[in-house]
Amino acid sequence: MTEYSLFTSESVSEGHPDKIADQISDAILDAILAEDPRARVACETMVKTGVAIISGEITTSAWVDLEAIVRGVINDTGYTSSDVGFDGATCSVINIIGKQSPEINQGVDRANLEEQGAGDQGLMFGYASDETDVLMPAPITYAHRLVERQSKVRRDSTLPWLRPDAKSQVTLRYDADGRPEGIDAVVLSTQHSPEIALSDLREAVIEEIIKPVLPAEWLSDATKYFVNPTGKFVIGGPVGDCGLTGRKIIVDSYGGMARHGGGAFSGKDPSKVDRSAAYAGRWVAKNIVAAGLASRCEIQVSYAIGVAEPTSISLNCFGTETVPVARIVDAVREVFDLRPFAIIRDLDLLHPIYRPTATFGHFGRAPHPLNGATAFTWERTDRAEALRAALS
Amino acid sequence: MTEYSLFTSESVSEGHPDKIADQISDAILDAILAEDPRARVACETMVKTGVAIISGEITTSAWVDLEAIVRGVINDTGYTSSDVGFDGATCSVINIIGKQSPEINQGVDRANLEEQGAGDQGLMFGYASDETDVLMPAPITYAHRLVERQSKVRRDSTLPWLRPDAKSQVTLRYDADGRPEGIDAVVLSTQHSPEIALSDLREAVIEEIIKPVLPAEWLSDATKYFVNPTGKFVIGGPVGDCGLTGRKIIVDSYGGMARHGGGAFSGKDPSKVDRSAAYAGRWVAKNIVAAGLASRCEIQVSYAIGVAEPTSISLNCFGTETVPVARIVDAVREVFDLRPFAIIRDLDLLHPIYRPTATFGHFGRAPHPLNGATAFTWERTDRAEALRAALS
Ligand SMILES: C[S@@+](CC[C@H](N)C(=O)[O-])C[C@H]1O[C@@H](n2cnc3c(N)ncnc32)[C@H](O)[C@@H]1O
Ligand SMILES: C[S@@+](CC[C@H](N)C(=O)[O-])C[C@H]1O[C@@H](n2cnc3c(N)ncnc32)[C@H](O)[C@@H]1O
Repeated sequence: MTEYSLFTSESVSEGHPDKIADQISDAILDAILAEDPRARVACETMVKTGVAIISGEITTSAWVDLEAIVRGVINDTGYTSSDVGFDGATCSVINIIGKQSPEINQGVDRANLEEQGAGDQGLMFGYASDETDVLMPAPITYAHRLVERQSKVRRDSTLPWLRPDAKSQVTLRYDADGRPEGIDAVVLSTQHSPEIALSDLREAVIEEIIKPVLPAEWLSDATKYFVNPTGKFVIGGPVGDCGLTGRKIIVDSYGGMARHGGGAFSGKDPSKVDRSAAYAGRWVAKNIVAAGLASRCEIQVSYAIGVAEPTSISLNCFGTETVPVARIVDAVREVFDLRPFAIIRDLDLLHPIYRPTATFGHFGRAPHPLNGATAFTWERTDRAEALRAALS
Repeated sequence: MTEYSLFTSESVSEGHPDKIADQISDAILDAILAEDPRARVACETMVKTGVAIISGEITTSAWVDLEAIVRGVINDTGYTSSDVGFDGATCSVINIIGKQSPEINQGVDRANLEEQGAGDQGLMFGYASDETDVLMPAPITYAHRLVERQSKVRRDSTLPWLRPDAKSQVTLRYDADGRPEGIDAVVLSTQHSPEIALSDLREAVIEEIIKPVLPAEWLSDATKYFVNPTGKFVIGGPVGDCGLTGRKIIVDSYGGMARHGGGAFSGKDPSKVDRSAAYAGRWVAKNIVAAGLASRCEIQVSYAIGVAEPTSISLNCFGTETVPVARIVDAVREVFDLRPFAIIRDLDLLHPIYRPTATFGHFGRAPHPLNGATAFTWERTDRAEALRAALS
């Protein structure tokens, strides 16, 4: 549901350079958390022609082979040879990681563990809507499914000439009640090997990627398809575009349908509220919608660095609430503890669960089948009952 | 105006590492545009202890001394010695910039200049509201003014112990009509020299930075002040936190009050719609509010790479419209040409105007007095009359 009559969201594949950077940052985070759950990690990555640079601040007792992790992630994305433009085995890996500032650390660690301060100031939003069964906006949901499908037909060689880098974009038309009614435009650009002719590529992408994913009743003669509109996309990945961690934050979240606080997720351990409080925000919003208290809900929380209690908790149900918003806020305060310690405990965040989040969105989905992780805790609707109880 | 009863926005100072990166990227863009207005620039920067790495894709006939530009920006921010943690004169400058992919270029350049294709796919939002005289949301406006003031009293030595890195955050309380009514919480963390005692720092920050900036009628005994809540912030800049271009996109825009498409601004020449169409979106939204067609307005536009016409233009006036939204959209289509070529022409974007945008927000303000640039073209309300005419 939205006030817009048209709404557009985009996604990118696992071979997109910014997403390579995100996956490297989260793979490093996971490797460290697996050995040292209390580590402090803020890992930033830059990838460009022939090089991956890892940076940021890490304080840990774990010893991990960072270079091997970086090379492994790049190879996993499909960049395994100079033929495709980037090679995990032979690229340069540069490490300029430092330690977390002890002055930040003194603000975060507390004798009383429960009083753990927020790792930074900031604002975060969580969102849910009953527009899809995963309680996510439809445009981002389908944008993700397009690039997931691109990945699948590339990996299983249905379309052997596909290469790892791709972007999707979906423009959805909404009816007067704010319900999805059709697709106005689809954009899909995918990297490819030089052999394939553009007309063949376009036909195959429409038949094997777009049509299997998008609901047939939303496609019509009025739907515009833009498949590889530049005409050629052989050069891709870090050669064509420098990749940085945290540069796909709208793809990572709600595709623009919800507001965003600006903080990135990948590479950050959950003492950073940019990540943990955004996950908690999704959890709260989803439970509100699951409880039937609103059909659409956005929550904003904010923090001061070194302080446990949020500096604000605020709610917007876009007029869809079935109970006054102020009362829902009270129920949220009663049912959810949004201090960093409590979020980490309740969502069980001190585990190596992050790498799968770094592709195809952090919300509204199960982890990618390829990596076999279980469901994300912040997608649980386990507090809907308690919210209803608090309001009755 | 907002549906939220509390709303929080943040800003950061020019010494914040992500903002150092943004300023370097935009200074490089400016230097190149000054000599070669048709250059293609996508410049990404990473700063970390002792090093600035510049990367991205640039195609130009200009010769510019990149190293000197990088050192100059760092020195300008106030990082001029190892004592403050970073020194523009002696840090390492690493250049891994490549060229724009000719395959992207073939999608952008056209024989008919007017048909210039969008430099990338993507979605962008523009926003305006009559909440402040600059037609911006109040929380981000005041968050910016706090760090601007920090910069001023640091530079004029009113508070000589201030150092360049700082962050501000403002939580505003709105009344039932969605009008600002008071400030619930202010967070200000500023880097400082080791001599100053925490209690002296807190008092001086409140008296010399917070009180001169925030409207007295919004401050009360209920206002919570969090000044340097970690207790110590001597280590700052790139030593404490790795900085990357494009990692403060919510600070750069509307502080979270408006939606965001995810694209960053700094370092990108205006053939990239992430930047130019977001600027145009602000221009359109501001003219709609200035024309009295709505008191609050958000526009979404989207593009396909290599295609000139937007794939969608959509409007949300949050129920504040005085004319049906569909009619306003028609008027926008009549009065504004949102093809990249036309945006660049109408907003006169092929000039070295970008570095001042990289601090204190891209919208709702005149350039910082310190750099003497004139007003930003996208803040003009020069089409309000035409919009009204189109609707009558
Ligand atoms: C267009 S590039 C960004 C602009 C780039 N920095 C430049 O210098 O123009 C953004 C993304 O588009 C995709 N891309 C790269 N080459 C492309 C091509 N030839 N056609 C379509 N999409 C492409 C890749 O996913 C890439 O990461
Ligand atoms: C808290 S740091 C980000 C977290 C960091 N990457 C880490 O390893 O924990 C984000 C920003 O906070 C500010 N900052 C740095 N040190 C601080 C301190 N001791 N107290 C308060 N703010 C600080 C700086 O503006 C910095 O860029």
